[in-house]
Amino acid sequence: MINKLIEKIEKTQAPIVVGLDPMMKFVPGYIQKKAFDEFGETLEGAAEAIWQYNKGIVDAIYDLVPAVKPQVAMYEQFGIPGMIAFKKTVDYCKEKGLVVIGDIKRGDIGSTSEAYAVGHLGKVTVGSKAYYGFDEDFVTVNPYLGSDGVKPFVKICNEEKKGIFVLVKTSNPSSGEFQDRTVDGKPLYELVGEKVAEWGAECMGDKYSYVGAVVGATYPEQGKILRKVMPKSFILVPGYGAQGGKGADLVHFFNEDGLGAIINSSRGIIAAYQQEQYASYGETGYADASRAAVLAMKEDIKQALESR
Amino acid sequence: MINKLIEKIEKTQAPIVVGLDPMMKFVPGYIQKKAFDEFGETLEGAAEAIWQYNKGIVDAIYDLVPAVKPQVAMYEQFGIPGMIAFKKTVDYCKEKGLVVIGDIKRGDIGSTSEAYAVGHLGKVTVGSKAYYGFDEDFVTVNPYLGSDGVKPFVKICNEEKKGIFVLVKTSNPSSGEFQDRTVDGKPLYELVGEKVAEWGAECMGDKYSYVGAVVGATYPEQGKILRKVMPKSFILVPGYGAQGGKGADLVHFFNEDGLGAIINSSRGIIAAYQQEQYASYGETGYADASRAAVLAMKEDIKQALESR
Repeated sequence: MINKLIEKIEKTQAPIVVGLDPMMKFVPGYIQKKAFDEFGETLEGAAEAIWQYNKGIVDAIYDLVPAVKPQVAMYEQFGIPGMIAFKKTVDYCKEKGLVVIGDIKRGDIGSTSEAYAVGHLGKVTVGSKAYYGFDEDFVTVNPYLGSDGVKPFVKICNEEKKGIFVLVKTSNPSSGEFQDRTVDGKPLYELVGEKVAEWGAECMGDKYSYVGAVVGATYPEQGKILRKVMPKSFILVPGYGAQGGKGADLVHFFNEDGLGAIINSSRGIIAAYQQEQYASYGETGYADASRAAVLAMKEDIKQALESR
Repeated sequence: MINKLIEKIEKTQAPIVVGLDPMMKFVPGYIQKKAFDEFGETLEGAAEAIWQYNKGIVDAIYDLVPAVKPQVAMYEQFGIPGMIAFKKTVDYCKEKGLVVIGDIKRGDIGSTSEAYAVGHLGKVTVGSKAYYGFDEDFVTVNPYLGSDGVKPFVKICNEEKKGIFVLVKTSNPSSGEFQDRTVDGKPLYELVGEKVAEWGAECMGDKYSYVGAVVGATYPEQGKILRKVMPKSFILVPGYGAQGGKGADLVHFFNEDGLGAIINSSRGIIAAYQQEQYASYGETGYADASRAAVLAMKEDIKQALESR
């Protein structure tokens, strides 16, 4: 799947992933109304609204980008109907040929991480049969529990040729509280980055490993260091746009080959129509506004990479 | 809810939580067969099997213990049908008067943690209405992202009078890889413990905080230190039994008042019938075997506390 991701990045010329994080406040009123008319103001109604909203965006952008990243929390908050909308979104994006990165940030002790890995990337055994549960292509993983919490994911990645992105340095303001603390003269995130390189060595695609890392766009200096610590790992970079990251901040996340990073934007794309810049599209043009925002982001990153 | 948990611990005289982690290999053959006969060897069949298995255990132990802890990964691995079985289990345990600790180990950047908190502890807004998604009483939270990943949970805890247990020092063999690393002369887990105390101060019940911590039974020395670092936090202690922890190891997790800790056992209880000691119960007596194992665990912890 890392080979497919790279192939699609090269084909689209866009190292971009669109974060499908459908908060209700982003969903145009007419889509909410239609869903509520059919299902009532219920969890089912909310789930229908976010699914229809997603579908509009995916239809408008699937030819421009290699991948999408649905954030499961935004679905999970609507309980079971929300999880059904998550699964529908994953399946639909795959049908459209997109690589799907499930932003699930799971991680637990060994036997439990194995269940998560099986449920999101692999197949679970039921009697004499085996089934995919959520069947994403990649998922994000929290490393706080150490190797035995991560290796079950690596095992399934090897079996299924799928991948993970391990949280190394997250994009949020307080990520430094623990991640930046100095251990043996180095920040903790660097130590985690070294482990990512180690885990990744067990799980290689053609050029890059199936084990990648998450490093926030909001921390470009740390990205520069981590790029060197994990040369064979793809870096998933959240925090572009709404969280403050800009194209010029991102060049050091890439390797010399122009690969090695994929930049995520969520609300900057999916709620573009709510920004002044794209206001002329109006509510009903929300999907076209998302397309325009993808094109602008693509150009911003392209220029930044060309002028480095 | 921390007040209710304490009240129930005092009433049952059992600082015990039963981990409802239904791996298929624990589910008696006759329950699997019945479920597969009805639903086929499908995800729905598996979900029915784990739900019926859980129900049998809950019916056999609900009067003995204050709380249960379903591990969501064991349900999530079966996709949507598994999540439905999780929700049924949560609801049924609450009907039986049990406090439900959702072992979900979620944690993300602020806006995303808020969605998890809303989905698992609070109510999500849909138009003019609001609904509980999964509606556990407590959940476990991963601290790797720092304060802004934890505080949205604390906010919902204050609103709903519910609680969280933050991962501090986990029970697994490689938990030391990052958690034990020395930062400013102290291990990282101690730093996280200090933060738990700080977060907890914003969210107090009568005697204890709504913000607790997870510290593995397998690390009693660390438990002793952490008990002092977080005097007002309940410690959820996994790793008793199958993972190697014993009653005598656990006394230092408790405060002088005999409170402050709740010990989890999962497979040691729910798969008791598969142990030599309880083999005479047979497959069909699996729930009675679980009841016997709870009584033995209760006695082990009682004796350990009395002889300290």
